Amino acid sequence: MSAQYFTGDQEFFTGIGAIRFEGPRSDNPLAFKFYDPAKKIAGKTMKEHLRFAIAYWHSFCADGADPFGRASHDFPWNHANPMTAAHLKAQAAFEFFTKIGAPYYCFHDADVAPEGDNVDEYQKNYWEIARIFRTLQDKTGVKLLWNTANLFSHPRYMNGAATNPDFNVVARAALQIQTCLDVNVFLGGEGYTFWGGREGYMSLWNTDMKREAAHMGTFLRMARDYGRRIGFSGAYYIEPKPMEPSKHQYDYDAATSIGFIKEQGLEKDFRLNIENNHATLAGHTFAHELQVASDAGLLGSVDANQGDAQNGWDTDEFPCDVYQTVEAMMVILRSGGFTTGGLNFDAKRRRNSTDMEDLFIAHILGFDTFALGLTLADRIISDGVVDDLLAKRYSSFDSGSGADFEKGKLTLEQLAGIGKTAPQTKTSGKQEYIQSLVNQYLFG
Amino acid sequence: MSAQYFTGDQEFFTGIGAIRFEGPRSDNPLAFKFYDPAKKIAGKTMKEHLRFAIAYWHSFCADGADPFGRASHDFPWNHANPMTAAHLKAQAAFEFFTKIGAPYYCFHDADVAPEGDNVDEYQKNYWEIARIFRTLQDKTGVKLLWNTANLFSHPRYMNGAATNPDFNVVARAALQIQTCLDVNVFLGGEGYTFWGGREGYMSLWNTDMKREAAHMGTFLRMARDYGRRIGFSGAYYIEPKPMEPSKHQYDYDAATSIGFIKEQGLEKDFRLNIENNHATLAGHTFAHELQVASDAGLLGSVDANQGDAQNGWDTDEFPCDVYQTVEAMMVILRSGGFTTGGLNFDAKRRRNSTDMEDLFIAHILGFDTFALGLTLADRIISDGVVDDLLAKRYSSFDSGSGADFEKGKLTLEQLAGIGKTAPQTKTSGKQEYIQSLVNQYLFG
Amino acid sequence: MSAQYFTGDQEFFTGIGAIRFEGPRSDNPLAFKFYDPAKKIAGKTMKEHLRFAIAYWHSFCADGADPFGRASHDFPWNHANPMTAAHLKAQAAFEFFTKIGAPYYCFHDADVAPEGDNVDEYQKNYWEIARIFRTLQDKTGVKLLWNTANLFSHPRYMNGAATNPDFNVVARAALQIQTCLDVNVFLGGEGYTFWGGREGYMSLWNTDMKREAAHMGTFLRMARDYGRRIGFSGAYYIEPKPMEPSKHQYDYDAATSIGFIKEQGLEKDFRLNIENNHATLAGHTFAHELQVASDAGLLGSVDANQGDAQNGWDTDEFPCDVYQTVEAMMVILRSGGFTTGGLNFDAKRRRNSTDMEDLFIAHILGFDTFALGLTLADRIISDGVVDDLLAKRYSSFDSGSGADFEKGKLTLEQLAGIGKTAPQTKTSGKQEYIQSLVNQYLFG
Amino acid sequence: MSAQYFTGDQEFFTGIGAIRFEGPRSDNPLAFKFYDPAKKIAGKTMKEHLRFAIAYWHSFCADGADPFGRASHDFPWNHANPMTAAHLKAQAAFEFFTKIGAPYYCFHDADVAPEGDNVDEYQKNYWEIARIFRTLQDKTGVKLLWNTANLFSHPRYMNGAATNPDFNVVARAALQIQTCLDVNVFLGGEGYTFWGGREGYMSLWNTDMKREAAHMGTFLRMARDYGRRIGFSGAYYIEPKPMEPSKHQYDYDAATSIGFIKEQGLEKDFRLNIENNHATLAGHTFAHELQVASDAGLLGSVDANQGDAQNGWDTDEFPCDVYQTVEAMMVILRSGGFTTGGLNFDAKRRRNSTDMEDLFIAHILGFDTFALGLTLADRIISDGVVDDLLAKRYSSFDSGSGADFEKGKLTLEQLAGIGKTAPQTKTSGKQEYIQSLVNQYLFG
Ligand SMILES: [Co+2]
Ligand SMILES: [Co+2]
Ligand SMILES: [Co+2]
Ligand SMILES: [Co+2]
Ligand SMILES: [Co+2]
Ligand SMILES: [Co+2]
Ligand SMILES: [Co+2]
Ligand SMILES: [Co+2]
Repeated sequence: MSAQYFTGDQEFFTGIGAIRFEGPRSDNPLAFKFYDPAKKIAGKTMKEHLRFAIAYWHSFCADGADPFGRASHDFPWNHANPMTAAHLKAQAAFEFFTKIGAPYYCFHDADVAPEGDNVDEYQKNYWEIARIFRTLQDKTGVKLLWNTANLFSHPRYMNGAATNPDFNVVARAALQIQTCLDVNVFLGGEGYTFWGGREGYMSLWNTDMKREAAHMGTFLRMARDYGRRIGFSGAYYIEPKPMEPSKHQYDYDAATSIGFIKEQGLEKDFRLNIENNHATLAGHTFAHELQVASDAGLLGSVDANQGDAQNGWDTDEFPCDVYQTVEAMMVILRSGGFTTGGLNFDAKRRRNSTDMEDLFIAHILGFDTFALGLTLADRIISDGVVDDLLAKRYSSFDSGSGADFEKGKLTLEQLAGIGKTAPQTKTSGKQEYIQSLVNQYLFG
Repeated sequence: MSAQYFTGDQEFFTGIGAIRFEGPRSDNPLAFKFYDPAKKIAGKTMKEHLRFAIAYWHSFCADGADPFGRASHDFPWNHANPMTAAHLKAQAAFEFFTKIGAPYYCFHDADVAPEGDNVDEYQKNYWEIARIFRTLQDKTGVKLLWNTANLFSHPRYMNGAATNPDFNVVARAALQIQTCLDVNVFLGGEGYTFWGGREGYMSLWNTDMKREAAHMGTFLRMARDYGRRIGFSGAYYIEPKPMEPSKHQYDYDAATSIGFIKEQGLEKDFRLNIENNHATLAGHTFAHELQVASDAGLLGSVDANQGDAQNGWDTDEFPCDVYQTVEAMMVILRSGGFTTGGLNFDAKRRRNSTDMEDLFIAHILGFDTFALGLTLADRIISDGVVDDLLAKRYSSFDSGSGADFEKGKLTLEQLAGIGKTAPQTKTSGKQEYIQSLVNQYLFG
Repeated sequence: MSAQYFTGDQEFFTGIGAIRFEGPRSDNPLAFKFYDPAKKIAGKTMKEHLRFAIAYWHSFCADGADPFGRASHDFPWNHANPMTAAHLKAQAAFEFFTKIGAPYYCFHDADVAPEGDNVDEYQKNYWEIARIFRTLQDKTGVKLLWNTANLFSHPRYMNGAATNPDFNVVARAALQIQTCLDVNVFLGGEGYTFWGGREGYMSLWNTDMKREAAHMGTFLRMARDYGRRIGFSGAYYIEPKPMEPSKHQYDYDAATSIGFIKEQGLEKDFRLNIENNHATLAGHTFAHELQVASDAGLLGSVDANQGDAQNGWDTDEFPCDVYQTVEAMMVILRSGGFTTGGLNFDAKRRRNSTDMEDLFIAHILGFDTFALGLTLADRIISDGVVDDLLAKRYSSFDSGSGADFEKGKLTLEQLAGIGKTAPQTKTSGKQEYIQSLVNQYLFG
Repeated sequence: MSAQYFTGDQEFFTGIGAIRFEGPRSDNPLAFKFYDPAKKIAGKTMKEHLRFAIAYWHSFCADGADPFGRASHDFPWNHANPMTAAHLKAQAAFEFFTKIGAPYYCFHDADVAPEGDNVDEYQKNYWEIARIFRTLQDKTGVKLLWNTANLFSHPRYMNGAATNPDFNVVARAALQIQTCLDVNVFLGGEGYTFWGGREGYMSLWNTDMKREAAHMGTFLRMARDYGRRIGFSGAYYIEPKPMEPSKHQYDYDAATSIGFIKEQGLEKDFRLNIENNHATLAGHTFAHELQVASDAGLLGSVDANQGDAQNGWDTDEFPCDVYQTVEAMMVILRSGGFTTGGLNFDAKRRRNSTDMEDLFIAHILGFDTFALGLTLADRIISDGVVDDLLAKRYSSFDSGSGADFEKGKLTLEQLAGIGKTAPQTKTSGKQEYIQSLVNQYLFG
């Protein structure tokens, strides 16, 4: 990232310039310690590997409010009228993108422009900002990783959007999706995300899950076809989350979502957008969800954040645990790295992180934590010790009867026949040894 | 259940005869209060609906030991030599089946006969008991709901069975499966279950999930084909469980298992065996897992137990929460009831329930709790109020554009066009109203 | 409850009169099925036992918003200016109290009047409504169970109130507490509650727990002394909650709060207000928390609601699980029943329960569920079977050496000497038998 | 640790010598990478700071069995008769202690000698091994950190030990405690631990918690007095754990146990032994539990292990997460370090870590992870940046009215008077900044 950054008529984050790499000993809170964008790792720069994106909602809309308290964060545009605020926010956002050095951004329709009182206003407002975005993209080189439709905040969606029991609401959701896809193509988005905040149920007693799931499949196929017709060539993403706001959400986790994608014939076009905090809410590790997606050939993009192991809701914290980012980057590197996807910081500074600089510091934390993850994962992969252990562990399937088994050439009788005399060796999993190795890579 | 029961040379549960229905006011701990086997509900007797099965392992093998304590339950056969004990256990088991009035039983190979020191002994012991079982089945009319192979207790399976990184162990597992299927056919089993206690991982760092999943699929197809070749015409079951003993298990929950079944081309032959305690460990309700299975046409059988909402391991308690059995029986009745499956009490009396009569009392609790579930679910379905609410809730998809949408006849543009002017009504989900209704059915 | 109810100039809940008891077969959604206020149980009416209170915040302020969506509930006063709205809300609230037949209500300062732009406005607004409340209390006979200060919604409290690291904020909190206590005395409140939504931490890294806990103790002693000086003779309550909104909250659970109360010398004046949903978030059952409080002589009042076993946040649902209310009422009856406390419905209808009648139906559900709990708990206690089992179980401590032990008259050597020869009997805990009994009481 | 180590007649861990420090680049699995015992940190050696202890049960008794599988670990003494095995185990244990370089060890009575068929055999066997231990202690310099009585494995304790409803069982427990204290004094133990595996309940329905808690208090006072009489001058420890094996355990967490200790008048003699895995099972972080204990002046010793955030039972893994050990060592260093206590590895190698060297590797992992924790915590404390942030955050209480408040010199009116005009500043908690700093200390 060069020291250049964008400002419009007004600079919003005054006193803060472009964030630079100063190395691990820097005591400047407003510098990267580990993220050196131009540094090459395994043939690509850190920036090319990590493809960081800024989440419009958390960074420029979320005001620190939570279920027990109102806004704690002030934004300079808070007291302007809605459309003026939307313009100011867009300027501030691109100032932030270029100062922090993020190549991408992501947004919901509802983040960027007021929904207005009717469909026409919704579209008019949205397009007005979309045109601003295109201008700012051209000026700055920042690109759209993905956008999405907010089908969960408005009370009309309280019973779901595509899975709403009322057809009229389903139809209204389609209108939003259509508009969002139109805007996506206009902005050259590399992906488009579905997150079904209310696609699920509050109570099974009043829910026909089977019918709702069928509606969701039909709806997504319609959306896919429309997007392809208007020239969208990127990836569609489904973002799994097990619960919250609904009691149960249909896109529970990666495995559930993959099953749905295949059942509905969507696997050519859809990929998963895996969020760390959603993984842990579903009882999985981040790495597990990434691996499940990768194994199915459906790993698309990542919502880079972190949950709290003691809290049972979506805390959406900035990632700071390097173990987690190392494990995540292992999967991402092994799967060949991102194509259309990237690392979107679906993360919010804490309610009590009220200094404007905290928005930068929190992202610096996130960038650095993933830069460490990338650097260390690459070191582990390059050294080959872990991969050699893995290869050796499964080597009995590389030749002979093991290979025949793997190819499906044996009957159960044949396999059992082998089992009758095959030596039964206890082979240590060496878990603690590998954990020691990992700490050597991290702290050695 | 008639008052007749089986005893062999020796009566094991002396002082306890056949358990009879005495009605809700009975103060006899050894009588059914709600389970009246011959009572007709919706055209079938309770016994025909519920198809209760006794789990050999918990009832005749589990000795109250837990990770912090050794056996607390004494059995008369405990001090006999292993094969004598196996014979005595078989006699005791059929005495219990007929006294409690269960039409079915279930077992692992390792429950019923000593594994011996080698394959030949394993098979010899197993077949000796299998022949006893067939005789006892003929004498008593008790039938085999399903059997299964214990591929998790022996240390050879510490890294998995079908998913073991060592091909030799996979082959050894095949031998066990082959034997179990042979025995199943000999005993006329109505189903055969796979529960993969070690099919999963302890650490992702030393695991190739993709290769292991492929092995599992291959293995199951081989087992399926073998079973069909030898005349097994029943249902194969996969029993989901998210974790324990492994850190993560591949058959995590119903949705994950269904995805696997379909991916592996097993959906014609395999169904799910849903366990309540495994549902809650996976973050779902019992009813949810049953509904997911039913919606996929893959609901096969049920492991009838209950977990503890405050404890994070598989407590396998006898079911006593009538809300849960009502919800479960709603799904089961709506899906047409069991065909090959039934309600298998995969449940153990508590470590400190050390009276021999506690084994009966615990099963009486389970039978009665499901009998209440059946009775009340039938009442709710028969009254039709809840079903009418559901039908009305989705009625906008029964005709007109809603029906067109459901049939996939609309494009996104057409749907969005409808959404542009469609009235957006907030329709209450009436959750508290339905909860009030349910309490009226239960306590009114 | 007579059929009379209060309305002011305007009736807010038109079409709904006073809710009456119609019995378990009624199909009127707007009638009690199990709560018969005048019915006598163990010498007191249901109404006297249960002492229901309505929570002002959930019933008249909460608008269905959640972290992912804005208001879904409309109130007639929503579009009035803040003080007018406050007046209308007060009228509506008392109309609701009298129609539903609740003898008590509870509120936060922030629920009832706008906080204004400064301290003077805060106090002026608050007192204006307090005077209205006193008039309405006099007219209707409805009484104040407790009020409390909202020290968590305003961003000034984002780092805590009494435990804020900034002394100025602590002082500001004191002003609110002083005002709330003044209002309490004016309204004849029977209790006063402290719920420390932000008294805890977001991160241990920036927190001095010891100093914060000491501040909290000092603060509460000051508040206690002030209240006593101005004539408050009721109970002070602490309401435990483990987390949310803070990552960790100091009043984690009953045991933690009791430890704190005693450490700080508050045990003469303070009692616990136990909430079911907070119990389960802390890993306990509702009954456990009530019993812990009761055993310490510190059971004061109850926030009557219910959580979701699959969701990890405070869902504050209306109670519908009769097992839970039976267990709760067992503890409450055994402890002698409420004195100053009662059952406050700290519960909100679901976001999608948008019909105005749902507010009534949800409370009817709650009233009925606790009425069932009371009726069935009383039946269990009156029958004496469970109490006899308990008495017998501990009878070895009623006389002889067991009694000496209990009185502390033995040395370890003496006790060990007894142990050397004392017979070691395994005595069954009879858990499944008791669970069977409970189902007989509930469904027999 | 010198390269010298103890072996008896037989060397058990052949091929493995004393484990030495080889530094972070070593590729020798059997060397320390970060634990350099003689290295000085803040005036003490690593060895003096960390006071590592080996848990006899996990290292020399636990055989890899779990609720779903039997032993996977072989020990050379497994097939000897029980007392011979006990002797061999003792020799092997001291060989291990000296090879790994642990200055301390810990044990239960049941770990070290067979319980025998009666009290006399129990005591005879136990004392025979105790005498061996004293000889081996003298030879090697290894010392006893603490011992404890196993009051949970034998079925007699299935309903509890000190809290058993049957007085005879309580008395039997006393005999075990007396013997364990006698042995402790004989071996010069620095502490004595109570872990109440069955002190809790399986069901509240058959439990009188209040009476049981009183029994526990009486019992502990008797044990304390006995120990003091026979010359035990070390610390008594209570080890909190929330559940497992019981459904609920009375020593739920640090706060609960502290409340109990004070209520029962035990605070002069008792301290807490905090286990990481028990902390997380109770919904807390390790650091939280340590801080709570430290703030009460009751931090005694530590069971050094780690749980699994996705598994809800006591997995007792070797610690490998350096974040957790840094946080733990921050509390321990700030509280002045251990006096009688130490870091006891209450941790077991995984069931599938079946190589004998895995026992060493697992401990090396644990030693290194805590050595990193110590080194990095010391660096953070020495640099002072974090402490300065903390000091500044609370500085408003260091003088003026804030200090008066802290001293309890203000009335609520006075405090409220200050609050009326005190400026209300939003001060950022700087959480993300501190998290960034921590990553710099760890990875910079
Ligand atoms: Co996300
Ligand atoms: Co999230
Ligand atoms: Co099962
Ligand atoms: Co289970
Ligand atoms: Co509450
Ligand atoms: Co709550
Ligand atoms: Co421990
Ligand atoms: Co533990």
